Amino acid sequence: MEELKRRILAEGENLGRGILKVDSFINHQIDTHLIFDAGRELARRFADAGVTKVITAEISGIAPALATAHALDVPVVYARKTRPITMAGAVFVEVAPSHTKGGDVFLMVSGEFLKPDDRVLVIDDFLASGATISALARLVKHAGATLVGIGAVIEKGFENGRQDLAYLDVPIVSLAVISDMSDGKIVLE
Amino acid sequence: MEELKRRILAEGENLGRGILKVDSFINHQIDTHLIFDAGRELARRFADAGVTKVITAEISGIAPALATAHALDVPVVYARKTRPITMAGAVFVEVAPSHTKGGDVFLMVSGEFLKPDDRVLVIDDFLASGATISALARLVKHAGATLVGIGAVIEKGFENGRQDLAYLDVPIVSLAVISDMSDGKIVLE
Repeated sequence: MEELKRRILAEGENLGRGILKVDSFINHQIDTHLIFDAGRELARRFADAGVTKVITAEISGIAPALATAHALDVPVVYARKTRPITMAGAVFVEVAPSHTKGGDVFLMVSGEFLKPDDRVLVIDDFLASGATISALARLVKHAGATLVGIGAVIEKGFENGRQDLAYLDVPIVSLAVISDMSDGKIVLE
Repeated sequence: MEELKRRILAEGENLGRGILKVDSFINHQIDTHLIFDAGRELARRFADAGVTKVITAEISGIAPALATAHALDVPVVYARKTRPITMAGAVFVEVAPSHTKGGDVFLMVSGEFLKPDDRVLVIDDFLASGATISALARLVKHAGATLVGIGAVIEKGFENGRQDLAYLDVPIVSLAVISDMSDGKIVLE
């Protein structure tokens, strides 16, 4: 994923407080080539995990999750943060603190779409503190399904999310790791 | 798109008041095959339009827009409904009434990602009243870009959005048209 790293350095903006703007290719505008390359690579790394479903959180996880699921040929479920009018019946809910917005975010998945025989891969655009991904992992376990791995496009290594997710005991893959964003820098591992 | 029509009839749920639940294959869980087939078909229908960018609205437009953009080999921009911390600088804003939630929804696109030389295809999961799609079309015009077409996966023909969008004078394509949802029915054209 040299192209991903090149784009992070060329177009990423360090907005301070650990916030990385990658709106030109991942978050607001999506570079279709890049996201499908990322999805193929994540799928390749989990090719032997017997994945039956990819789970992510709306909104910015949807594109990398869909690209990965496309390559793995499985469905995607995206956890909702607000309960849509169509979400009736049993719902699995977990809560995660929101770093960028403050307060808590509730992640909801309909009981219809996570089953005990599912082998689930969690995909998100960022692995930072790990709080959102941890909540998604808890949703998977809540449903009695098997968590088989975690994948992210960009990891903020300095936020130590990887260490905080170690308790889950599954492989964690990210395609680019940022080791330092202090003093306006963007340093890749 | 016979498979799409089959799935709407087999799995779609008429929740009343014109609300169609398709959470098992489009909105909450995404059937990867089906959405990429839909994207390829929408791309085929606009293959000669010289599309340089696909625009949609978060959240449920992202998957069909990404699938269409993948087939057309162009980027996607998804209009935001809340302004993320990374969205600084000039922003194009339009407003649309929300049918499912009441009140108004603001759709925002950063000025960086819509330019006067763009030829833009609007893609959404549903064409219902046309209010969201009309707001997206106004965003395109606001930016001085050229709107070349409108595509939706499912059209609720009985809400007359197609007629309300006629003023835009561009081709409108939907892959399945529901003509009647009265009395709990789901009737396809």
